[in-house]
Amino acid sequence: MTGSAAAPGAVTGPVLIVGAGLLGTSIGLALSAAGVAVLLRDRNPEHLRTASGLGAGVPDPGEVSPQLVVVAVPPEHVGRTVASVLAEFEDAFVTDVGSVKTEPLVHLTSGVERYVGSHPMAGSERSGPLAASAALFDGRPWAITPHDSSAPEAVEVVVALARSCGATAILTTPTEHDRAVATISHVPYVVAVLMAGQLADAPSDHLALAGQGVRDVTRVAASDPQLWAQILRLNSGAVLAPLIALQADLEALVAAIGGGEGAKLLDVLSRGVRGTHAIPGKHGGPGRPIRSVFVSVPDHPGELARLFADAGDSGVNIEDVHIDHDPGRPMGLVELVVAEERAEQLLGSLESRGWVTHR
Amino acid sequence: MTGSAAAPGAVTGPVLIVGAGLLGTSIGLALSAAGVAVLLRDRNPEHLRTASGLGAGVPDPGEVSPQLVVVAVPPEHVGRTVASVLAEFEDAFVTDVGSVKTEPLVHLTSGVERYVGSHPMAGSERSGPLAASAALFDGRPWAITPHDSSAPEAVEVVVALARSCGATAILTTPTEHDRAVATISHVPYVVAVLMAGQLADAPSDHLALAGQGVRDVTRVAASDPQLWAQILRLNSGAVLAPLIALQADLEALVAAIGGGEGAKLLDVLSRGVRGTHAIPGKHGGPGRPIRSVFVSVPDHPGELARLFADAGDSGVNIEDVHIDHDPGRPMGLVELVVAEERAEQLLGSLESRGWVTHR
Repeated sequence: MTGSAAAPGAVTGPVLIVGAGLLGTSIGLALSAAGVAVLLRDRNPEHLRTASGLGAGVPDPGEVSPQLVVVAVPPEHVGRTVASVLAEFEDAFVTDVGSVKTEPLVHLTSGVERYVGSHPMAGSERSGPLAASAALFDGRPWAITPHDSSAPEAVEVVVALARSCGATAILTTPTEHDRAVATISHVPYVVAVLMAGQLADAPSDHLALAGQGVRDVTRVAASDPQLWAQILRLNSGAVLAPLIALQADLEALVAAIGGGEGAKLLDVLSRGVRGTHAIPGKHGGPGRPIRSVFVSVPDHPGELARLFADAGDSGVNIEDVHIDHDPGRPMGLVELVVAEERAEQLLGSLESRGWVTHR
Repeated sequence: MTGSAAAPGAVTGPVLIVGAGLLGTSIGLALSAAGVAVLLRDRNPEHLRTASGLGAGVPDPGEVSPQLVVVAVPPEHVGRTVASVLAEFEDAFVTDVGSVKTEPLVHLTSGVERYVGSHPMAGSERSGPLAASAALFDGRPWAITPHDSSAPEAVEVVVALARSCGATAILTTPTEHDRAVATISHVPYVVAVLMAGQLADAPSDHLALAGQGVRDVTRVAASDPQLWAQILRLNSGAVLAPLIALQADLEALVAAIGGGEGAKLLDVLSRGVRGTHAIPGKHGGPGRPIRSVFVSVPDHPGELARLFADAGDSGVNIEDVHIDHDPGRPMGLVELVVAEERAEQLLGSLESRGWVTHR
């Protein structure tokens, strides 16, 4: 996998987008904004109307020969749809934007050299064309996954597509891609689901004590289960190995807790700390020293906005914000993350405006 | 468990706080601000100096008879320390602020009627007196866990302590408390650790694709492993049952994915969605309709602050903020959560100031 991509081709259009959901419509909006002619197809006439109404392209009249076809249908239909458009348009390059990159290959027979899979690492807990945005891919990684027979020109056009949408193209193989997303996306989702499942039948007075930790751990479990069931099934080959490793780790941890093995327990917990440090920082660069500034904010309309206005006036760049959501809390605790050397400046500025900060 | 508490006693002082870490020092700051005399003890002279320097109380001269002793030492020392202060001060009420409430009881022999355990649901990934704040407990739940022999006056004083610190007292039993925190705190931590552990040895080019989901799931795994090892060991009785249930669910899920059992898989994933809905909303009330407004923010100093200033000027109350941290992203995506009926006003206001929003 490498951040540098092949020599850029160009998306000259027309581009046919098959599937006017969140991703398809967002690509249509980005390409249309760049002046590329976009044609849209969707089995759902309302999606088609909405997407073209938003300016993502025009409904495909069926008379134009596209330069590039982008398949943006649900994961389980990707393989067959790619095969079908490869057959329908014998001169077009074809890509898709599905979450799994090896499984579609088994459906392909002819024209495979014109197909290069891809996967923008962008999305939303929302879905459908109304959630779409030309800026959805801005600065995001977009995995480009040529297979053994992909033509270099096909790779170039798909890289150009990613760039036209504002994304950063990352070249990798279908197999490596599927292993990577299993580890950094599919298994974390499964873990969140299993934890959330434990809460489904928990007594409500137990849940009343829930804090930020359990909310963070389970958040992604709220995503569309139909979509995720497809993804897990299609990527089962790559997902099972880390899940089985997780099973073994859980078994060892249960034994360590049950057997009172303190050293073994500490060992597992410390490995978790190392894992959190392995996730690359913002922009993938080495972490800069940062510091959190905590501020109490009354839960009244306008208070949070007033804090942000005051923080803005302090002249300190805010890297990140977290808001504490504990139930029963009339006072919110807001964490402003700033460069370590600017923290005192922010604290002083906020305190001089009457904010209660926590040092 | 009930939100209504016993008739309020009063914290008249002096209060002796044993352990001047994050919680002990924060309680000292809150009580001192309320005009209560606070004495401090800590085996670490530097913690003692820091805490008293911050205004959390004065080092215990050993000549005063306290009304209330608050034990705020690491979890594994709570039981013995409570027993020791019950013996040292024969007229004092005693509480502790540890995360596990049944285990300390086994260490107690005499004076048990003067002891009532408690557990403020507040903390930080930071520790030590320097991280302390008088506002740490503002509006947070604070579990009060009388045992069978606790005197009513002891309960009243500990309820008053929680209220003096700005918290909401929640009465429950030691056993119910330990089961509740197992489900909503200890097991979520374990799950985060297991997931983070999978990342510790993952190839860095796989981790380069990591998005917000895996960061959320693993965040709490960065917490102090020494402290957590104590908590898990002391609460093993309550933690093991949900962990074993989790093991069974994981096994069933692995079988469903491996066997291609779509209906079973969807069933597990849908239960996860239900679990996320079971967590009470902000203030424990029913959820109001909210909407997320997405804004692209260039990653330059001052841009995020400028957004917050402009959002503040829009007059719309911002309920929550999330910032997207995908690596390689020169443009940040900021999610502002607002009441549904105010979203258009915020969008219009931000767009009129040149912000790129995503509808």
